[in-house]
Amino acid sequence: MFAIKRLQQFNNKVDVQLPTAEDLQQATLSLTNALVEKPSVTPNDAGCLTMIENRLRKINMLNERFDSAPVTNLFSSYGNNKPLLVLVGHVDVVPPGDLSNWHTDPFVPVEKDGYLYGRGSVDMKSSVAAMVVALEEFEKLKLHKNIDIGLVLTSDEEGEATQGVKYLVEQLQLKGKRAQWALVGEPSSEETLGDSIKVGRRGSLTGRVILKGRQGHVGYPAQIINPVKSASKLLAKFESKQWDLPSRFFPATSFQTVKFICDSGAENISPASLEFIFNLRYSPKQTLEKLRGYIEKKIQKTGLEYEIEWKVDAEPFLTHRSPIRKCVEQVIEQELAISPKLSTAGGTSDGRFFAKTGTHVVELGLCNKTIHQANERVPVADLGKLAALYLNILIQMNQANA
Amino acid sequence: MFAIKRLQQFNNKVDVQLPTAEDLQQATLSLTNALVEKPSVTPNDAGCLTMIENRLRKINMLNERFDSAPVTNLFSSYGNNKPLLVLVGHVDVVPPGDLSNWHTDPFVPVEKDGYLYGRGSVDMKSSVAAMVVALEEFEKLKLHKNIDIGLVLTSDEEGEATQGVKYLVEQLQLKGKRAQWALVGEPSSEETLGDSIKVGRRGSLTGRVILKGRQGHVGYPAQIINPVKSASKLLAKFESKQWDLPSRFFPATSFQTVKFICDSGAENISPASLEFIFNLRYSPKQTLEKLRGYIEKKIQKTGLEYEIEWKVDAEPFLTHRSPIRKCVEQVIEQELAISPKLSTAGGTSDGRFFAKTGTHVVELGLCNKTIHQANERVPVADLGKLAALYLNILIQMNQANA
Repeated sequence: MFAIKRLQQFNNKVDVQLPTAEDLQQATLSLTNALVEKPSVTPNDAGCLTMIENRLRKINMLNERFDSAPVTNLFSSYGNNKPLLVLVGHVDVVPPGDLSNWHTDPFVPVEKDGYLYGRGSVDMKSSVAAMVVALEEFEKLKLHKNIDIGLVLTSDEEGEATQGVKYLVEQLQLKGKRAQWALVGEPSSEETLGDSIKVGRRGSLTGRVILKGRQGHVGYPAQIINPVKSASKLLAKFESKQWDLPSRFFPATSFQTVKFICDSGAENISPASLEFIFNLRYSPKQTLEKLRGYIEKKIQKTGLEYEIEWKVDAEPFLTHRSPIRKCVEQVIEQELAISPKLSTAGGTSDGRFFAKTGTHVVELGLCNKTIHQANERVPVADLGKLAALYLNILIQMNQANA
Repeated sequence: MFAIKRLQQFNNKVDVQLPTAEDLQQATLSLTNALVEKPSVTPNDAGCLTMIENRLRKINMLNERFDSAPVTNLFSSYGNNKPLLVLVGHVDVVPPGDLSNWHTDPFVPVEKDGYLYGRGSVDMKSSVAAMVVALEEFEKLKLHKNIDIGLVLTSDEEGEATQGVKYLVEQLQLKGKRAQWALVGEPSSEETLGDSIKVGRRGSLTGRVILKGRQGHVGYPAQIINPVKSASKLLAKFESKQWDLPSRFFPATSFQTVKFICDSGAENISPASLEFIFNLRYSPKQTLEKLRGYIEKKIQKTGLEYEIEWKVDAEPFLTHRSPIRKCVEQVIEQELAISPKLSTAGGTSDGRFFAKTGTHVVELGLCNKTIHQANERVPVADLGKLAALYLNILIQMNQANA
């Protein structure tokens, strides 16, 4: 296995006892199973954090809880005021949905045909297990600690995400603590483990618009101001607009209508008003001011009475020229003999809360094909490989800062 | 009063006893009050038809009921296989809506400041009362009957309108009976009584469309097919399209979206499908085939999977070169000294069911400003005037066919 080959090469330089591939695989699978068994539907951690705390206590990590009911947050670390590298994950999962679509119980981990099935098997209890195992194995190496290391876990990534990592980062800031680098374990891979890592994320901006017209009987069109007429023109424009061009790291900004509601209640009456909600995923080429200004101006031009509410879900960030990005890329090349794509695609992640404080954020995790779906599953063999990747990253970031 | 002056002029020719303006006013007001007191919210006639049957029996009209539960329908007539003129009305009313918007009880007729308030005072219990009074006064004249005369009343004009006049006309057809002319009492006037009569109606075509896309996470726009993108373009086009030009009797065809529903349920998920409902009011320049064909072709061109359901609410008709149109226009000119606008604007009416069998249909009724609203009201003085108009029309149509 790649994992072991490379660790042994490294061993030649630092002269430590490395785990075997089999050890990493067994330890990660075993902890993943224990986590999947806990039905930690967001924001309930269902005991996951306590179980992990107990393991990390044994390797002398300091467990600090930053709970904000009903959300639980753990910051487990050791260090000595050196630059801090945090591994970031979540133990909460999305609800299983319609159980009749599952071939197995979503909260009973089942191995079949080389896959481990279960809710959270990909997103992201396997990653959390691989992080814990990597921390344990790193500790066994008894290396000189050139960096501080922490593990950040929350039970509020899949939900509102307001009392989770966001809250924890704010609390750490109050204590004067800031991470230099963050490695987020979200499923970043596409077809095979390690083929894609996230080096940034687009921003996410949500708008909710109420547009008011003048209701009337459809038999008297001259007396009607149908807000659908204006809204359909606006949305046709926004949905088709080339907001900007893709850049090296960012796809073009995109606009999606996610809700559109109007109903006069009768086939012969025009609607008095309507509501639509849209979401923009935007690159750093845009600014919030530019986007909001453009959209509001177009709505104003309809001449209709309107209301608009904005919600900034995430501001964009990019981690390009950073040791953590180079290290993660190198480890993947060494371990898996592939060059990962540097991506910023996909949804938001808890990385944004670290990015906001200047932390360099990279995301590396399992293949995201089955996340949030029925029969969520991960190739069993990827578990040990991911632990090996995380362990290598810890070792190399530690060595790089010697 | 105009009504009396003209009736007396006419009297010089036919030598009959005419009612005074006061008689017509009192009789119509009294019957209107009795009808408004009955809370005949569609499709319940609340006893209105029985009350009217009892009055018409006294003038030897034959009452035939064509009920189709819960709808009640009356055809009251006398005749001798001569060309048939029907007066057409309905005794059902729309619900009063939020009672807090009413200054008076909607089912207690109240006279105030020259107005009669109450649900149905305009649409169209006053018209029905005026028709009954006109029939009674016409009978008193003991004229030779050159035409057959009937009164058609339903309790299902404001509702589905499938078991009302539509049903009654079909039943009459089965009996081999067809009206030559129909005078519908729907509120046709705009600012003052008689300023506008309907000589036709536009067609009404309703379409319901389901448009299906491919749902996805907004963070992966390339994988999404958002049906709002196509629907907004379609509706922007349809809402703004010049379908045709207005003609002498018909306004241009108009398109109104009355419902648009899509909701992915989350701000980061695009909708899988959407539904919209629209209504077209169309002139005889269009055909159903042309309208349906054009719209379906444009929907097909989106390339999306779709479903469409069509409902033909009414086909257009025009009553132009007909004795009934000329007679109604002349009577208004004689009685009220104004020339009515010949209109086809507004919603559909029960006239369409007669028009479909070749009947020449004209509509003359009160001012429609407050119909279906809270505090529906009619100038009290218009009641007797309307009865005088109807009576004149009966006399002149009878004389014209001598």
